[in-house]
Amino acid sequence: MLVVKKFGGTSVANKERIFNVAKRCVEEYRKGNDVVVVLSAMGKYTDELIDLAQDINPRPPKREMDMLFTIGEQMSVALMAMALNHLDVPAVSLNAFQVSMHTTSAYGNARLKRIDTERIRTELENRKIVVVTGFQGINKFDDYTTLGRGGSDTTAVALAAALRADACEIYTDVDGIYTADPRLVPNARKLKGITYDEMLDLATLGAGVLHNRSVEMAKKYGVPLVVRSSLTNEEGTVVKEDVNVERMLVSGVALDRKADRVAVIGLKDEPGIAFKVFDCLAKKHINVDVILQSIGRDGTKDISFTVDDGDLEDTVAALQESRGRLSFDRIESETKIAKLSIVGAGMISNPGVAAKMFESLYNANININMISTSEIRITVLINEADGERAINAVHDAFGLAE
Amino acid sequence: MLVVKKFGGTSVANKERIFNVAKRCVEEYRKGNDVVVVLSAMGKYTDELIDLAQDINPRPPKREMDMLFTIGEQMSVALMAMALNHLDVPAVSLNAFQVSMHTTSAYGNARLKRIDTERIRTELENRKIVVVTGFQGINKFDDYTTLGRGGSDTTAVALAAALRADACEIYTDVDGIYTADPRLVPNARKLKGITYDEMLDLATLGAGVLHNRSVEMAKKYGVPLVVRSSLTNEEGTVVKEDVNVERMLVSGVALDRKADRVAVIGLKDEPGIAFKVFDCLAKKHINVDVILQSIGRDGTKDISFTVDDGDLEDTVAALQESRGRLSFDRIESETKIAKLSIVGAGMISNPGVAAKMFESLYNANININMISTSEIRITVLINEADGERAINAVHDAFGLAE
Repeated sequence: MLVVKKFGGTSVANKERIFNVAKRCVEEYRKGNDVVVVLSAMGKYTDELIDLAQDINPRPPKREMDMLFTIGEQMSVALMAMALNHLDVPAVSLNAFQVSMHTTSAYGNARLKRIDTERIRTELENRKIVVVTGFQGINKFDDYTTLGRGGSDTTAVALAAALRADACEIYTDVDGIYTADPRLVPNARKLKGITYDEMLDLATLGAGVLHNRSVEMAKKYGVPLVVRSSLTNEEGTVVKEDVNVERMLVSGVALDRKADRVAVIGLKDEPGIAFKVFDCLAKKHINVDVILQSIGRDGTKDISFTVDDGDLEDTVAALQESRGRLSFDRIESETKIAKLSIVGAGMISNPGVAAKMFESLYNANININMISTSEIRITVLINEADGERAINAVHDAFGLAE
Repeated sequence: MLVVKKFGGTSVANKERIFNVAKRCVEEYRKGNDVVVVLSAMGKYTDELIDLAQDINPRPPKREMDMLFTIGEQMSVALMAMALNHLDVPAVSLNAFQVSMHTTSAYGNARLKRIDTERIRTELENRKIVVVTGFQGINKFDDYTTLGRGGSDTTAVALAAALRADACEIYTDVDGIYTADPRLVPNARKLKGITYDEMLDLATLGAGVLHNRSVEMAKKYGVPLVVRSSLTNEEGTVVKEDVNVERMLVSGVALDRKADRVAVIGLKDEPGIAFKVFDCLAKKHINVDVILQSIGRDGTKDISFTVDDGDLEDTVAALQESRGRLSFDRIESETKIAKLSIVGAGMISNPGVAAKMFESLYNANININMISTSEIRITVLINEADGERAINAVHDAFGLAE
């Protein structure tokens, strides 16, 4: 059996944790399995590198930032190979050049295109544990690139797909996917299984355990993921296409407090106006969510939507720039709001789910600002102050607690 | 004009020094010259990496140590490229994979075999300053290697040779080659020029400015070197084949206090005994210097020689191991000794030089233990306590002061 195991930065933050990870890998190896380990940079090392760069150049070229970033994972993998060696298991560390992890050209936010497996296979055939740098790749110019947020997860999934691994285990500081964030909802329950689509919606909506790009890739190549804790031996949550274990109406509730709401008031009511609004934002690479279009006064239209709070300023600026083309009355923005979502593959065939969610919020006296739905998700916009109360109310209403 | 500039770890130890180096490179660039910069790891970073590794595994595999070491120079070059960019000069950093610096396989002590210049030339044609990692290479397995002590000097010389550079400048924390170590001999004088061979003998004998492997390579490919300070604008010392500037009888005096003396007493007087002694040391990779063979009691022989103090223990162990084959009476060792050498290309045709050296030591009441000579060098073994007095006496005797 070939197992890919991915450990994040906190799991390799110091000597003790490095050996903790090494021992888990040795256990797997001693079962006779082939083990590929994917690592992130140690603890907060990437942040340290950013500080180092900022001190030299407040706007460092992205190409050189990636050249700097990639040393983080190279440090992790070299130390892990040494730790494994100290435990008398042959190991070899490999970086993006040695594996040949081909990506697109975009520094800081590249996408994996192709992974050569020859070197890894040779090392596995020699019964070595192969320790691979996550997060990094090389582009057609033979330059280092990095994969952006959650990049190491993507590396692990891509390696599992390329190597046709039997399992891909993502180790984190939580022990699986929960029905809601346990810090917000004390009686949240760990799920045994969840589908890719549910996971994608949860990742997008701020559950924060897996990055959606890695889940998308897992879905595309049918790589079953296991999310589990690097600190305990508990079983974790399986993410795969068809989870027979439990087909729940609602799998989880997610709260995203980082959303801001923008309203463009008094747009001319003419065909293509929505396209023009979102086209000017797309050109600035601003992601938009929960869109609502309504009739305004005097035959005009209002369009509201949410953006990440980091993008608010750019959003308003982009709209103001296009004012001539768009012709609107004014822009309003609201930062004290939150997105609350329920996700569940079982929802498709159960029309009462939305009503039940709205009812529970009404009973808790929480006002709904905007609503957006997909086949397996319902999202409402509420006041940020109501967030914690709201997620608990909905979690209880669907009986998700243990 | 194409100039290769090499800066050591102290020259890039912090932000201020990085910008100091960057400004020097920009000056050269603004003259219209092509600039290739070779850097070592920042300050004591390599030592920090050793500590990090030792903490995980007291005997880390050499392959993994090189994987860890190489991040040091990658950090330096990325930060330097950012600094140059901040000074509005286009720059690009390259590591051993990107340049393709092919070396022999030996981890920790590899030798450069071949450097591809295509990438560097392309970047130079685009009028970029090219910042290259020193000290590191890749071997036939596509693994990182390091070049051992003074490796970055060797990288710079090899790059200058491969690129047919017009100059190769080695920047250090001293402003050139002196007639003696100025910390020991206050009135030592900076040399304008010195030959490769003189420099080789000085490097071997502990002058410590340039590593001999880099000087050997410079000699082989006829690369003229300039040794100068990264902190001042003074001219430095030129190292080349034929130095017309000044053809001195004696160019410099060097003191090496790291030598230990070993004596093998009472060896059987038979042909090949010296070979057997040094063969058993060569097999353990122990370098031997200043050899003396003398007649012992009762038809036996004594052989004395010096080794680096780090090798003393291994030397004695190796000899004891081979006791059956060698058959000797006993081994004596002495650690409180020093090697004092004078070096000068002019010495070949001047027979009185040795006598003058011995006379000056006699006048200073310093006892000579052993003597060894080559065409351009005379070395004597003295008591370590006499070292500083001896080097000043000899330095004065040859009128080397300013």
